[in-house]
Amino acid sequence: MTAIDRLCVEVCDANRALVTRGLVTLTWGNVSGISADRCFIAIKPSGVEYSDLTPEMIVVVDPHGVRVRGDLRPSTDTPTHLELYRSFQAIGGIVHTHSTYATMFAQARLELPCLGTTHADHFAGPVPVTRQLTEAELPEYERNTGRLIVERFASIDPVVVPGVLVAGHAPFVWGPDVTGALHNAVALEAIAQMAHGTLALRESVQPLEPHILAKHHERKHGTNRYYGQS
Amino acid sequence: MTAIDRLCVEVCDANRALVTRGLVTLTWGNVSGISADRCFIAIKPSGVEYSDLTPEMIVVVDPHGVRVRGDLRPSTDTPTHLELYRSFQAIGGIVHTHSTYATMFAQARLELPCLGTTHADHFAGPVPVTRQLTEAELPEYERNTGRLIVERFASIDPVVVPGVLVAGHAPFVWGPDVTGALHNAVALEAIAQMAHGTLALRESVQPLEPHILAKHHERKHGTNRYYGQS
Amino acid sequence: MTAIDRLCVEVCDANRALVTRGLVTLTWGNVSGISADRCFIAIKPSGVEYSDLTPEMIVVVDPHGVRVRGDLRPSTDTPTHLELYRSFQAIGGIVHTHSTYATMFAQARLELPCLGTTHADHFAGPVPVTRQLTEAELPEYERNTGRLIVERFASIDPVVVPGVLVAGHAPFVWGPDVTGALHNAVALEAIAQMAHGTLALRESVQPLEPHILAKHHERKHGTNRYYGQS
Amino acid sequence: MTAIDRLCVEVCDANRALVTRGLVTLTWGNVSGISADRCFIAIKPSGVEYSDLTPEMIVVVDPHGVRVRGDLRPSTDTPTHLELYRSFQAIGGIVHTHSTYATMFAQARLELPCLGTTHADHFAGPVPVTRQLTEAELPEYERNTGRLIVERFASIDPVVVPGVLVAGHAPFVWGPDVTGALHNAVALEAIAQMAHGTLALRESVQPLEPHILAKHHERKHGTNRYYGQS
Repeated sequence: MTAIDRLCVEVCDANRALVTRGLVTLTWGNVSGISADRCFIAIKPSGVEYSDLTPEMIVVVDPHGVRVRGDLRPSTDTPTHLELYRSFQAIGGIVHTHSTYATMFAQARLELPCLGTTHADHFAGPVPVTRQLTEAELPEYERNTGRLIVERFASIDPVVVPGVLVAGHAPFVWGPDVTGALHNAVALEAIAQMAHGTLALRESVQPLEPHILAKHHERKHGTNRYYGQS
Repeated sequence: MTAIDRLCVEVCDANRALVTRGLVTLTWGNVSGISADRCFIAIKPSGVEYSDLTPEMIVVVDPHGVRVRGDLRPSTDTPTHLELYRSFQAIGGIVHTHSTYATMFAQARLELPCLGTTHADHFAGPVPVTRQLTEAELPEYERNTGRLIVERFASIDPVVVPGVLVAGHAPFVWGPDVTGALHNAVALEAIAQMAHGTLALRESVQPLEPHILAKHHERKHGTNRYYGQS
Repeated sequence: MTAIDRLCVEVCDANRALVTRGLVTLTWGNVSGISADRCFIAIKPSGVEYSDLTPEMIVVVDPHGVRVRGDLRPSTDTPTHLELYRSFQAIGGIVHTHSTYATMFAQARLELPCLGTTHADHFAGPVPVTRQLTEAELPEYERNTGRLIVERFASIDPVVVPGVLVAGHAPFVWGPDVTGALHNAVALEAIAQMAHGTLALRESVQPLEPHILAKHHERKHGTNRYYGQS
Repeated sequence: MTAIDRLCVEVCDANRALVTRGLVTLTWGNVSGISADRCFIAIKPSGVEYSDLTPEMIVVVDPHGVRVRGDLRPSTDTPTHLELYRSFQAIGGIVHTHSTYATMFAQARLELPCLGTTHADHFAGPVPVTRQLTEAELPEYERNTGRLIVERFASIDPVVVPGVLVAGHAPFVWGPDVTGALHNAVALEAIAQMAHGTLALRESVQPLEPHILAKHHERKHGTNRYYGQS
């Protein structure tokens, strides 16, 4: 089994996990992963049901989007993924879904505020929302969606805030690898639901104090992290 | 297996899928399909539990509602389905449910606004709400419900907006065939939930920009569509 | 198998169905049924997990609450059930749960308004809420809860409105038999969720028009009913 | 099988039950139990998936947090658990989760009011919320979280109010033993959801009358309790 074979298995598993994790309806989501040398991107084929998906059906493209393996057409969102991999060199996997609560914030065009330690454990600050694409940006719609995200991260480190809400659309989430991206997508949906309900209880709620936010993120991700077994 | 046999299998499967898709409680929903020659309509029998349903139990009626196959009484909503098939010649399947969030909008008598690309991917504009039936329209209640829907679509194309909210009642959704209608019913419930939560976050939220709405609908349904494998 | 044996099987099945229908958390609910001669009431034993329940564990009491069969102590709510069977002679089964959305209305001490046909199909009018028990009524707490419900139905027919919200507590629902009571309990929770979400969308929403309410209830329950197969 | 072996099995089962009870996302939760002599605390290992957990993986520490059994690192929250066991001598099990609705109240920094008998059956009064830790308290973050909870219970009996909301974080719940703690955690999440929805319906809702609260708590927990079979 080559590294690309393994990547295709991992991408296939993560796409199927979107269903078991409750992140997708119909075929509204796709997961990709990039090889260690950043030469190959494995991604879900467009419009295929998750339950039908096998590693052989995963499409592999080069960084320009040219298909190098597989018989199916890659996800229509592939150019968005490629832009993110090009600009965010530290990321290894991307998950795009229309998960329910994260999409509510994207549709409301509100960033997701950090209201608690659950959020801080995964995202070291608010999850930002992009501006809307203009009519002039439509011709390369999917590629420009990627550029829009990169533009929004001009002064945000995509490693410590591994996700974004595309205005009027839905979230894109990433991570150091495919599994990490999937976990961040699961976390984003959970914290979006919690924030939604917190704001319903108390509209004027204040964000988590910065010293607690920093402490929690560092417990899991800092150089002296002590969460987990390694 | 004849074309009618196949239609009954498809209608049976779609009725049973209402349960797995989370669209029905008790027996609050029914699916029908029409034959290619538009001479036969296959529909769920009234009041039967989905788990008991077999293709043999599906009732086939002619366009006047006369039963031509099956021992059971067809859904009480059959006259509504027949009116829709008569007036909307391009549709091949109809799904009626009381799915939770779509019914909330129907009860609130508010159209479902298009707040994001998830909506635009399935419905090219707001999902309209009908007026209420008058007391004089009660005698032919189910048939008049169909007429009410047709009246509401006087200036809306039922192909690009494949569903409606009947005021104080619940949604009717359709599609080019039975599976397409089921997918649109699943989509309607998901976008209704998202819209409900979006409005809770931001009551003054604006609808999706028309150029993005058009772009998304065309990606999936336009003559140059590029979503999926065909 | 005697009639009482069959009643115990039916009551056991309905208690277990509370879990699969999503109506209970922990052991917060109980179902009872009464024999045709109204001499025997079969009810869940107190504090037993639903998954452990067998027909042999169902307790049978007489109308005075004296145990005539079974080794376990009956539900602490038994005196409430007995009061309802005594006063509402047309009912054959009772379901008490703390189902989520119905309990929200009970806690808010708001009747559940009839906002749509889903409600009208099962309850021909608002589901009323009781007053709270006074301190003087505590000594016979469970029996007085039953009396409180009966008091609330002084001018309501329990056959057409087969359920109630006990203020600060939770719903009691009934029906012509055990299965009918269970179906009404499932319906109550669903319409409570729909009403909750409808009020969130539009606080000033008006109740369903009386002519539509009457039409829907009569389709299912009137002398000329035409829903279902019989 | 020694008493410690049995405790590890019980703690393992309760940790796995967090998933089936719907109380955790990813690895956001942990359960511990203490031996009868209060010399050994068994707790979940840090960052391990619940589905991978076996009794052998449960870590046993002494009251100072020194590991006496197991190869894995204990939960990072272990010092919080130890503080609670030290100060609350009557408790035998602790459950920490980020369960959705309880966490909303913790993030909103609002105590959970007692709005109904469901709440009173498990918590004899509001579930309190702590203050936030100061920057000076960060060095011993987890231990100070425990001290913060104990401080909040200066005038509350942890036996009758078996849980707390840590501000900006999430709930800690306890009980006489591991199973009791798990049941209280399940109850807390359910009553938090009910209170959330009750407040949405009626912001000015009043707490349950004290005589009803006392009556319900005493039915299940008083010296003359009559709920259940013992």
